[in-house]
Formats: sequence, structure tokens, C-alpha cells
Amino acid sequence: MARSFFSHLECSRCARRFDPGTIQTFCPECNQPLLAIYNLSEARKHLNPRMLSDREGSLWRYRELLPVLDDANIVSLGEGWTPLIHTRRLGERIGTPRLYIKEEGVNPTGSFKARGLCLAVSKGVELGVRSMAIPSAGNAGGALAAYAAKSGIEAHIFVPHETPMVNKEEVAYFGADLHLIEGLISDAAKKMNELNMGGKWFDVSTMKEPYRLEGKKTMGYELAEQFSWTLPDVILYPTGGGTGIIGMWKAFSELEQLGWIRGKKPRMVSVQASGCAPVVRAFTRKDKKSEFWDNATTIASGLRVPKAFGDVLIMQSIYQSGGTAVPVDDADMIRTIREVAAEEGLLLCPEGAACVAAVQKLRKDNFLSPSETVVVFNTASGYKYREVLSSLAS
Amino acid sequence: MARSFFSHLECSRCARRFDPGTIQTFCPECNQPLLAIYNLSEARKHLNPRMLSDREGSLWRYRELLPVLDDANIVSLGEGWTPLIHTRRLGERIGTPRLYIKEEGVNPTGSFKARGLCLAVSKGVELGVRSMAIPSAGNAGGALAAYAAKSGIEAHIFVPHETPMVNKEEVAYFGADLHLIEGLISDAAKKMNELNMGGKWFDVSTMKEPYRLEGKKTMGYELAEQFSWTLPDVILYPTGGGTGIIGMWKAFSELEQLGWIRGKKPRMVSVQASGCAPVVRAFTRKDKKSEFWDNATTIASGLRVPKAFGDVLIMQSIYQSGGTAVPVDDADMIRTIREVAAEEGLLLCPEGAACVAAVQKLRKDNFLSPSETVVVFNTASGYKYREVLSSLAS
Repeated sequence: MARSFFSHLECSRCARRFDPGTIQTFCPECNQPLLAIYNLSEARKHLNPRMLSDREGSLWRYRELLPVLDDANIVSLGEGWTPLIHTRRLGERIGTPRLYIKEEGVNPTGSFKARGLCLAVSKGVELGVRSMAIPSAGNAGGALAAYAAKSGIEAHIFVPHETPMVNKEEVAYFGADLHLIEGLISDAAKKMNELNMGGKWFDVSTMKEPYRLEGKKTMGYELAEQFSWTLPDVILYPTGGGTGIIGMWKAFSELEQLGWIRGKKPRMVSVQASGCAPVVRAFTRKDKKSEFWDNATTIASGLRVPKAFGDVLIMQSIYQSGGTAVPVDDADMIRTIREVAAEEGLLLCPEGAACVAAVQKLRKDNFLSPSETVVVFNTASGYKYREVLSSLAS
Repeated sequence: MARSFFSHLECSRCARRFDPGTIQTFCPECNQPLLAIYNLSEARKHLNPRMLSDREGSLWRYRELLPVLDDANIVSLGEGWTPLIHTRRLGERIGTPRLYIKEEGVNPTGSFKARGLCLAVSKGVELGVRSMAIPSAGNAGGALAAYAAKSGIEAHIFVPHETPMVNKEEVAYFGADLHLIEGLISDAAKKMNELNMGGKWFDVSTMKEPYRLEGKKTMGYELAEQFSWTLPDVILYPTGGGTGIIGMWKAFSELEQLGWIRGKKPRMVSVQASGCAPVVRAFTRKDKKSEFWDNATTIASGLRVPKAFGDVLIMQSIYQSGGTAVPVDDADMIRTIREVAAEEGLLLCPEGAACVAAVQKLRKDNFLSPSETVVVFNTASGYKYREVLSSLAS
């Protein structure tokens, strides 16, 4: 049996093929992300859901549908296969009793970023990459630093000065090279590109490298498996770079082609901070892509992303699924962190709390009905947001 | 099929039986912990390891060997089934290439305490308990607060003033009642007992309540399953209250009776801080129990336990297994946190780092041979120890 049914890379816009045996970034013609394509008709003959049921409790249970060819290249810290928690009391209070939280905070380095960077580093090892660089709002930098440490790859992390201290500390502990930049993640990216003249470092920026998406798509596989190969009605996802929303939408398409799921796919809801909501604005305008958001500001550091490189694919996922996009105020995130902690014993990150607050909004607006199954992603451990939480603890 | 093969409670010393249908604490005659006893000869007829392989990724995969009778009483936040990570580079450097870290930091509330408190709260719900109290060095208090929040039980947490701020904050967020006490966990326990005259709160102190141990024993079940129903040669465990070491030793005995493992059991190594090492001192003196350690001091808050109520059982586990007890200086913990982060991408807590440092000591002393399989427990997320880490980041 094949270990991976990975076939090739193709441009998400022009469908031009790219050789997966060498290092690739994005389509230079379209300036759009590349997607990993699998031989799913072949996979369908060899794989079925029952074969997965007794596999290891990590995202590597979907081994054949991930792009790493040789097991020896896998760099793993135990990422993925995170709990899906039925938050019944919370759900009943806000009128959606079938409310679940997918708790991504228990990933290595305490955030969902581990999934993507695990794949980027593992595939990087396979392709002979020796150094990587990333602009980050915080958690992605920490995750790259950890996987780079384990693999022996050199890592250069560019983060805004305002990035939470915990992210700066973790990068230092993992032995990566930390660059603090005035401004936002977009400024960090600029500075990185300046210093990376000649491309001595492999740039693993969100969606400018094809394999982080493959790590993130496993959130979609896991949801399907945890719901016994059905899917929820609605998924709310906090959207910075948006790899998760794109990845899950890709996963659902792959699962359909595999014949493992059927019927209606979830409505994908992008949740952003009111102080940085380029996707919400684009959705309101019915645009196909977003515009740069000036003066981004929010306590949710993961949402301080003024424009996502993969915005076209984010918007497609929302439109195709019949979803929507919701802005949430910082004050509502804070209130929700308190409520969910006291009610469900879960310490959410502001980004996850934003999604719970969005459920309340959408229930009031009747976008959500009481009988629907709703999944919210808590993308990072609340314990990584102590600067926010401490300042609020009264 | 029975949902639980739980039979009754008995005193770990005099073997007197106690009714599991009512609230129990410890044996009033012997002043020793009670143990949960299962009908394992019956369980053996109905259960086998293959039946577990496709179960949920939490400690509830061992459902029938846990004391909760009715599923409706389970209060779960996704605890257990934590990664077992082969730390090859670290192991090769220190001369034990078959070195594994069991990463307990990805449990709910970021520590291994979730396992025990999950069971104490779930069984408490089953027995109609409405309020609980606990003296804690920090993480146990946070875990109780979380499970109490989810269950609706009222919780009173007594911690030393010196407890890390994160533990005080999490308790406040989870809506529990926080009491800050001058002194150590032993002083917190005294104060709690003063205020709890009449026993209005159910005391879930380590080993004074019989079910936390049942949650902790699942670490032993998981190790056996993750190593395909064999066991490692040596286990190093940071010992505060010692429930884990006692629980794993109990698990291995149960697994033998079930016929799921055979042969030699692991040598159990208790690791403590040089500044608070009552178990190490007792081992050196070949004593059956420990004496109170005066002026306990260490950066590892989980090891600031001057005397464990379950010390007799801890010493038995060490002696019966041919284990040992090792003290580690704070400076060695700090050095080790740095080394393991840079080498393996894992941010250990000081207690886990103490165990890695102990591996180095024991390898030098030839207690460990290079061919042996060694497991170290990282009992909490390094992200919960930012006060320690920040002060050290240079």
C-alpha cells in the first residue's frame, strides 16, 4: 500500500502544475497559493474510514492523505487529534444546545499553528531545506521554532514588537533567531523580505508555502471522524491568515471524493475582530478578495492580520458554503472568556472567545437555528494569553 | 456488558472494605488511603486490548476499569491519552537513546492534575457531592476549579501565597473560591480543615479521597498501550503528592491480573527537588515512610510538598519495583529546560526537567544502561511556568 497518495501541486487559480519534488512557493503568474493534489480515485480503492479507527492519536492518522512521502522525514511533537467538547450548558444558555468546541489549545506549543508548521517542517526536511523564515503574529513563530528545533533546521522568526511576551520567550527557548519589528505582521513580512535577499531562508509565510495548508486541513478530517463521518451544520473559525478555513474546505472536498462523507457541507463562518476585519468587509461588499485593513487593533493577536495572502480562497469557502463573516468587539471577547471559563471549565483564547460571541450574534439573527450542530474553534490555549487575562482579572 | 467492573474500596493497609455507594475518604483506623478494587477476573472474560484500540482519545477509553458507574455522571474536558514522544537527539546525547517523554502538559488546564480531578469530580457527581475543597501547590487547584465549573459543583481552593500567579488566575476565571494562605501546601491544608469544621465541603486532598488515584493510574494504562502492551524498563516521575507513581504501580498490577502484560515491571524512580526531598531522604534511610521536610524551597511549585499523605504507598512502589529516588537542584532544572527546548522543541515544566536531569545522573551512575527504554513524565505545560521562565530568559 502507498504511504502517501500525494500527486502534485497546482495553482489554485490557473491550475498549472508544479513539481512537488522541488521546493515550491506560490504561482508566480497568478500570485496565488498552490494546492496539494492527491490521487483520490486510487486512495479510494485502498483506504476506508474503518482502517483509521485504531491509529495513533495525532494528525498522522491521515498519513496517506498528507504530502510527506518517507516516514523518516516526519517531525512530530504529538500534534492534532484534539478534543471535541460538547459545551451543553453554554449552548443551552445561548440557544444552540448542540454547540461543540474543538479545543486546539492542547496542540504542541499551545496552538493550532502546530498543525501547519509540523507539515511545513516535515516536508521541508524531505526537500532538503536547511533554514526557514516566517513573519508571525506570535503563535506561528513559536510553532515553527519548536519544530525547527526538533528537526535541526535553522529558524528566523519575525514578529511585531507588540507580540505577546510568551511568543518571544518560546522562540528564544527553542533556540530560533528572533527579530522584533515595529508595526504589524505585514511590516514583519516586509522586513523579512528585505533581509532575505537572495532567498537564503525558505519563506514559510501563510499560504505562500503549500504544505502548512495540508496540516491545517486535518482539522476538517478530524471533525468528520469525531462526528462519525458526518459533518456539523456550521463551523465558526477565527480568521487571521485563514489557512484553517481554506484547509477544512479542501478537506471536505477530498472527503467527498473519497466517498467518506455525503450530503450538505457545513456553512463556514469567518470570525474577525471589529478592529481588524478585512474578510468581514469584503463579505459585506460581496467582494472576491479583501483590502488591506488600516490601523488594525485588537487584543486577539492572532487576528491582527490586515490582509491574508489567501483571501481569494477564504472568500470562496465562505460563499460556496453559504457561510457568513462576523466582527466581534474586544469587550465581547473578554466577557465571553469569563463566561465560558465559569460555565464550562475551558479557558479560551480571545480568538476562540470571539467565535462563541459570534454564535450568540448569529443565533439572535436566526442565521443559526436551535437544532443545528455548531462547531467553534478555540485556536490556542488561554494560558498563552496571560498578558490579556492578567490585566483583566479583577 | 458491564460498564464498570468497579467492586469496592478497601484500606491499603488493613484491607477493610468500604462501601463505594457512599462518600468515603481514608481508613480511620489506619489513617491510610483507600484503594478502588475491580472485579478483574470478570473483566478478563469481557475485555481485551484489541477492544480498546478504536476508542476515544481520552482516559475514558479505559471506561470499564474506572469507578464511575453511570456515563451520565462523567465530567470530561478531553483529559488523558497524551503523546509519548521519542526524544532521540536528547537521548543520544545523554546516553539513553531509547528515551521518551510522556507529555502531560497537553491535558485540560495544562497539567496531569486534570486526570485525577476529572475522576474525583465525576465520581463526586455520582455520589451527590455539591461542594469540594482542596489544598494545592497550584495545578491541582486549577484542575479542580475547571471540572467543578463544568459540573456545577462549588469549589474552594486553598493555595500558598507563593503559588504561581497563573494558578490563582485560572481559579478566579473558573469561578471557584480562592483562599491564599501564608506558608506551604501543608499550611493551606491546615487552614482548610479549620474552615471546614463540620465537613460542609468534601475534602479532595491527595490520597485522602480514593478516586483521584483512579484518574492518575490511567497514565500506566496509556504507557502500556502506547508501547503495544509491553512496559518500559524505567519510569521517572516527579513526586509531590505521589499519586502518579502509586497509580501507575496499581495500574501495572491490574494489567497483570487482566493478563494484558507480563514479565518484569518498570523500575519506578521518584524525582524530587533538592530543596524538598522527603521521599529521597526516606529512600536513603531505607524507611517505610517519609518525615516532614522543613523549610521546603524550589522553583518547581509542584514539588513543594513537605510530606505526602500517601508516602507509605510511594515507598512501596519504589522498593517493590527496584527503583530509586533522586534529588535535583533548581539550577539543573533550569539548564535542562533550556537544553530540551532547543534540542527537542518541548518546553518542559521544572518538574519534568528535573526528571530529565535525573536520567543524566542515573546514566552516569549506571543505574540506567544505554539499551534500556526510559520514560520521563513532563507533568505540566511549560507555558504555565512563565514566572520561572521569564525571570530566566536572558
